[in-house]
Amino acid sequence: MTTTADFVFDSDTASERVGEHEFELTLTDRWTTFIGTTNGGYLLASCLQALCNDVPHPDLLSASAHFLRPGSPGPARITTDVARIGRRTSTGAATLLRDNREIVRVLATFTDLGTADGPTKVNGKPPALPAPEKCVDAFEAFTHPRPPISQRTEARMADVPGFWRGKPGGASATEFWVRMADGRDADPIVLAFLVDSAAPIVFDLGIPGSATIELTVHIRKRPAPGWLACRVTTNFLIDGFHEEDFEIWDSTGALVAQSRQLAIVST
Amino acid sequence: MTTTADFVFDSDTASERVGEHEFELTLTDRWTTFIGTTNGGYLLASCLQALCNDVPHPDLLSASAHFLRPGSPGPARITTDVARIGRRTSTGAATLLRDNREIVRVLATFTDLGTADGPTKVNGKPPALPAPEKCVDAFEAFTHPRPPISQRTEARMADVPGFWRGKPGGASATEFWVRMADGRDADPIVLAFLVDSAAPIVFDLGIPGSATIELTVHIRKRPAPGWLACRVTTNFLIDGFHEEDFEIWDSTGALVAQSRQLAIVST
Repeated sequence: MTTTADFVFDSDTASERVGEHEFELTLTDRWTTFIGTTNGGYLLASCLQALCNDVPHPDLLSASAHFLRPGSPGPARITTDVARIGRRTSTGAATLLRDNREIVRVLATFTDLGTADGPTKVNGKPPALPAPEKCVDAFEAFTHPRPPISQRTEARMADVPGFWRGKPGGASATEFWVRMADGRDADPIVLAFLVDSAAPIVFDLGIPGSATIELTVHIRKRPAPGWLACRVTTNFLIDGFHEEDFEIWDSTGALVAQSRQLAIVST
Repeated sequence: MTTTADFVFDSDTASERVGEHEFELTLTDRWTTFIGTTNGGYLLASCLQALCNDVPHPDLLSASAHFLRPGSPGPARITTDVARIGRRTSTGAATLLRDNREIVRVLATFTDLGTADGPTKVNGKPPALPAPEKCVDAFEAFTHPRPPISQRTEARMADVPGFWRGKPGGASATEFWVRMADGRDADPIVLAFLVDSAAPIVFDLGIPGSATIELTVHIRKRPAPGWLACRVTTNFLIDGFHEEDFEIWDSTGALVAQSRQLAIVST
């Protein structure tokens, strides 16, 4: 039998409760980015996994993270705090620390997406991608050295953006398929990781690096198993700050996550 | 001489420090919505004004708020907590309480937008609105009773959405000019209020009410004085939850704020 414990996402985000609202974990080096820092989506997911223990609702609905310092592999501590437990939603805060220095602060609201009902009206459409098996394996086409984080996911693209082959092409948006490399199907907290798991599209403007200041993700539905279609857009790079909007659509064509992050470029 | 103390936004969001990280204020009834609750943007702005006292950077850059309970006029308390003071940014948390019950939790990052430099590439355009003097005075065209919050701003529209006259027209987006009614020019914290100050565009789908769960606003530039052009969009109403994206462009045609909120409709 396969359980989530067999997947690297679950083992690496799991923490041990050591106090009423205190958890310990080891951030592994499997989520390191090409600049040597620990991926923000992994830090966020670790906070959310800890916070799950404190709230009765099963599904992440909305999480906001402010990133304070670069993360790094090693022992870490997460403190949590419940703001409110309500009938329909519950909200808590989490702070992840390394060596007693705050790395990220998170606010998150949980709900039961299985009981959500109410009107639906959708204007947008999933990315118009060929089927995954007709796409390019993104990392086979990648000409840079592959950082550990890139081995956590598989990605398929109709065509890779220019920077992917070392020639920034000026694109402001890109679309691709993604799934966890070890077969772990997505759930809301995996989605919260995935929205920060791709190389920023501002790289296609020749920007060499980008550090997230704030990231908010909203989960719109429990995702169906299988490939997820992503759409990433940056429309406003202003004085070195840029937003990045990220949509994830599941294999049934439903929007399952929307995120926006504000980041600052390094030059 | 006119100072900000002469403006209702400043007097009504001001709090008095009563402890190292504790502030008291009175939430006034001037920001009450049509359902009798206190506007979320006003609550957020009050938290941000308090937090300003704790951080050295002059400008709000990014704020995330999780709304826990409806706000109401009366005495309130704000507790603050500094997460990190850095060279380029500082981040803190604030919680607003009424009768010792948490109403909203906020994380916010501040910077000095006056010294921001770095590359700029903008894809979007300001709303294509006629000049304010050629537009309709939105509230003169409003056929519902006007709640107090609607008297805090002036708005001009090329055409009012259907629900404004009692006939929902199914629009998913709208554009309008806005400014504070008493002549207070916008600054980053006023922008954080304004992104939550308009009637939700889902009302044009016949939705009778909507409560914000989470709102994040990013300030992209210090706004120039004068009218501000707004664009509001809701593309995804799913099982009773919807996002609302809000852009504010200043009188020079620059994008000055971007926000997204996740809200739940009442039926």
